[in-house]
Amino acid sequence: MPGSISQMTTRTYVLTLSCADTVGIVAAVSSYLSGQGIFITESANFGDHQSGRFFQRTVFNATPDQPSIEELEAGFRQIAEKFGMTWTFHDTAIKPRVLIMVSKFDHCLNDLLYRYRTGSLPIDIPAVVSNHPDLARVVEWHGIPYHYLPVTRDTKAGQEAAVLALIDRLRIDLVVLARYMQVLSPELCTALSWRCINIHHSFLPSFKGAKPYHQAHARGVKIIGATAHYVTGDLDEGPIIEQGVERIDHTFTPEDFVAIGRDIESVVLARAVQFHIEHRVIANGNKTVVFRR
Amino acid sequence: MPGSISQMTTRTYVLTLSCADTVGIVAAVSSYLSGQGIFITESANFGDHQSGRFFQRTVFNATPDQPSIEELEAGFRQIAEKFGMTWTFHDTAIKPRVLIMVSKFDHCLNDLLYRYRTGSLPIDIPAVVSNHPDLARVVEWHGIPYHYLPVTRDTKAGQEAAVLALIDRLRIDLVVLARYMQVLSPELCTALSWRCINIHHSFLPSFKGAKPYHQAHARGVKIIGATAHYVTGDLDEGPIIEQGVERIDHTFTPEDFVAIGRDIESVVLARAVQFHIEHRVIANGNKTVVFRR
Amino acid sequence: MPGSISQMTTRTYVLTLSCADTVGIVAAVSSYLSGQGIFITESANFGDHQSGRFFQRTVFNATPDQPSIEELEAGFRQIAEKFGMTWTFHDTAIKPRVLIMVSKFDHCLNDLLYRYRTGSLPIDIPAVVSNHPDLARVVEWHGIPYHYLPVTRDTKAGQEAAVLALIDRLRIDLVVLARYMQVLSPELCTALSWRCINIHHSFLPSFKGAKPYHQAHARGVKIIGATAHYVTGDLDEGPIIEQGVERIDHTFTPEDFVAIGRDIESVVLARAVQFHIEHRVIANGNKTVVFRR
Amino acid sequence: MPGSISQMTTRTYVLTLSCADTVGIVAAVSSYLSGQGIFITESANFGDHQSGRFFQRTVFNATPDQPSIEELEAGFRQIAEKFGMTWTFHDTAIKPRVLIMVSKFDHCLNDLLYRYRTGSLPIDIPAVVSNHPDLARVVEWHGIPYHYLPVTRDTKAGQEAAVLALIDRLRIDLVVLARYMQVLSPELCTALSWRCINIHHSFLPSFKGAKPYHQAHARGVKIIGATAHYVTGDLDEGPIIEQGVERIDHTFTPEDFVAIGRDIESVVLARAVQFHIEHRVIANGNKTVVFRR
Repeated sequence: MPGSISQMTTRTYVLTLSCADTVGIVAAVSSYLSGQGIFITESANFGDHQSGRFFQRTVFNATPDQPSIEELEAGFRQIAEKFGMTWTFHDTAIKPRVLIMVSKFDHCLNDLLYRYRTGSLPIDIPAVVSNHPDLARVVEWHGIPYHYLPVTRDTKAGQEAAVLALIDRLRIDLVVLARYMQVLSPELCTALSWRCINIHHSFLPSFKGAKPYHQAHARGVKIIGATAHYVTGDLDEGPIIEQGVERIDHTFTPEDFVAIGRDIESVVLARAVQFHIEHRVIANGNKTVVFRR
Repeated sequence: MPGSISQMTTRTYVLTLSCADTVGIVAAVSSYLSGQGIFITESANFGDHQSGRFFQRTVFNATPDQPSIEELEAGFRQIAEKFGMTWTFHDTAIKPRVLIMVSKFDHCLNDLLYRYRTGSLPIDIPAVVSNHPDLARVVEWHGIPYHYLPVTRDTKAGQEAAVLALIDRLRIDLVVLARYMQVLSPELCTALSWRCINIHHSFLPSFKGAKPYHQAHARGVKIIGATAHYVTGDLDEGPIIEQGVERIDHTFTPEDFVAIGRDIESVVLARAVQFHIEHRVIANGNKTVVFRR
Repeated sequence: MPGSISQMTTRTYVLTLSCADTVGIVAAVSSYLSGQGIFITESANFGDHQSGRFFQRTVFNATPDQPSIEELEAGFRQIAEKFGMTWTFHDTAIKPRVLIMVSKFDHCLNDLLYRYRTGSLPIDIPAVVSNHPDLARVVEWHGIPYHYLPVTRDTKAGQEAAVLALIDRLRIDLVVLARYMQVLSPELCTALSWRCINIHHSFLPSFKGAKPYHQAHARGVKIIGATAHYVTGDLDEGPIIEQGVERIDHTFTPEDFVAIGRDIESVVLARAVQFHIEHRVIANGNKTVVFRR
Repeated sequence: MPGSISQMTTRTYVLTLSCADTVGIVAAVSSYLSGQGIFITESANFGDHQSGRFFQRTVFNATPDQPSIEELEAGFRQIAEKFGMTWTFHDTAIKPRVLIMVSKFDHCLNDLLYRYRTGSLPIDIPAVVSNHPDLARVVEWHGIPYHYLPVTRDTKAGQEAAVLALIDRLRIDLVVLARYMQVLSPELCTALSWRCINIHHSFLPSFKGAKPYHQAHARGVKIIGATAHYVTGDLDEGPIIEQGVERIDHTFTPEDFVAIGRDIESVVLARAVQFHIEHRVIANGNKTVVFRR
């Protein structure tokens, strides 16, 4: 049945780009694609009046008789240069390779592993790194190697070098700090720029740093939250990808905040990872453009 | 200062269109606009895989030296015909003319009047129609004529004819039923197709018909809501534009539901009206495409 | 250290009661407890003006030198009889025994197992029952027996008898239908009255029955939800314990609804189970009083 | 008809109290009331394990043949002294006298006036004070005197003295800063301790001080909010009563934040005022106990 064969080999790509905003960008990009007979299934763009930058994300299908990704890229180069674009064609057939880092809290890890094993999060997880041995069993049950890399103040440089070596060796696309309770060195932050997502257990910028739920309790807030952001050298100041909140009241103890927070953190982190691997997030200075559905 | 004169006379248009989805629509539209040197400030589109329909909303500026809206329309006709589009160029300088219909509950009315008088809802309100005299004072304080058109079962046909005559005479673009407690006749529904928005005080399709908060209370739901939708001959079955919800618990009486509902209804209806007048809503069968921000 | 011994052996009880509302109930109950020197840590009550019923939940500590639960019950009987109460003293040291029933969807199961294994849901799970063999591995990894009890129309009576025998033999306190895709017979519903919780994947009473997400998509709603309720012979009409919602828009397919729904369902079901095992839910006709925090 | 006469003259009181937590408080209070044959319609309490404080709010009816409020107070004094209570009997027949202060933004004012004129907020508003003349017309249309009290750095002391004199003369129970864009002096804050509610247009403690929506936009948050709190000498650090949030994304400008914020601020402030006048809020150090429904 040729139809279904053709369908099976139809490729889906995501083009992301940003550049200074001006007349004709959408026309140039869409004319280029339609000129190849390519069908766009989803497209979103945004012009930031404040920064004068333009952002676009376009999803399209290419049938076997249409140009390869290399050919598409080659042809696109001219347009990209004309507009001074930062741009990438992403092949959705290639699963992003995600390294998860954890300490002892396992709710985000459990949630990510569940989405991974059921295919709802289409990623590969070549390794989980932890500074504690505790979570090895559940990780290994998923068939994922568990790297126990303990860290003290004295061994931090070496441990981070080992982490970075692993990231390089395993060709990791994205590092996810799933309640990894260590502050990364500025060097590691820089090395992982825009490819390392952290979940902070507060509604940033409120309650940066340690024990945010206890800080929130002491302040007497009526809503608590969690924030997923890219990691930068500035602690808890990186570009925010996603936030979530939940209402609480005076009867909740700090321990209750922690319990409720587990659910918020898991969902917020999973969404941020999903947005990232679906190439929905584009950098805009210290902020993000997130082309949500 | 020529710069600011030019800015003052820059026109902003919204183009909305829908047609069967195929290759090249975005390219054709955006090339047409950029070919005139026109700057697109906002654009969103959606291809519905289920219905095979494509929807687009594009906002753009035109400077005084660029083509008039009539010229733009004339030039666009060829593209529209090629793709079989339903399409409109909307001039944002022309305020939509909105007729509000109310009975005795005034929370939605008060909210709409507030947004109208502060300019946050850029509309004209040439008239308010009511089947009760009660709300004349607040409406007239806003300088808006209040038409008291009582209705009984026997006088319904005549009253609706008067309403329709008013709508025609005042060249009304949109009718808003802001808790108008009368069921419109099928004829009036048809006459106002896709230009009459109702607020129903339940989370549709739950609790259609009369006294939805009392129905919700009897059922013991834990969340209540409100729904803004286009009016059709099928009671409470029209295309949904916007919905909102609020958590309640066992301590809330039906009267409490009513009180809380006032806040939900006001916000949901105001949003729906805003989406409509900003041309963010496009018909998709019995459903709506809403290009929210 | 006597202090910590005493602390270790301090017992915590939950008293739940309901009766016709009248003067003096709170006084009688609290005087009885304080007369024994007992410290109340949490108390909530509710008088339903509509039904004329009164509901109370009181949490208190009893030190080793204070009366045993049997003595407390014996002394309380007089008060209970005076007011015609339905009442129970629950010992929080005894973990509720929960039977989970599933088919093939495992998101709610995974979530409940996670909360169980981390202790955040203080229950015992003596068995998981399924009409499919698929989920045996993950259940057994948690050290929980997996009972594969297939069912067809012809074998339904026998399968339900086997389920009920298991429930009796294992002294099950609560049955949780964690996306068990079978309609229970009226007989089984009756046998499990007020001790069987189902998660329905819609915002009830909207979209009862099969494929609610597809129904919701066809209707074009802007918010979807899930509902946890006690099972009764009336399909999807049982007393609601908890509901949750999430905003969606026109770009979401029915499959997207299913994916988003997994997160809502998991959280809503977990909350309902938690409310139930903490004795926060009291029957009020076909509705529930839920003493949330 | 004696029944309805009796009903008409039934009084409803709210008793609020706080004290060190210990055995027997609920018993003492409820026995006292039931000893007078008094029917409790609503009661909530909370023991704060952290501070060791106990809080209670009890609503009850008293028929004409039952003791007067003075008699009830006199009889209660002994219990209050025994437990060292801070306590008040509030007569719900007496409407709280609320002074509203505004500058130029009128959305909170409009919302409060609407709830006032429809009776949904059962208060008296003997005066509105503003440092600008702009909002006189709408206030006076409601039959409320408008006090235009301009303020500069040099005249601040005098203006605040005038405000305070007005508060005293009009026997004001609660001052509501409904977007009053002036920082009160420490002296005025102290004078209005626990009886002055401010709405801050951010999700505190994020974005204290000026232009919070612009701060939020610069930080790139994905959710914005508003906070109603009691005013203290510590700017934006007072006890929080209520908070609300709304999701935004990268397409929203600071002006959009302001527009969306208007809806959040109005609802959050109205709720806080309602909680206060229904005596649902009790001080707990720098935090609040809010006995919501």
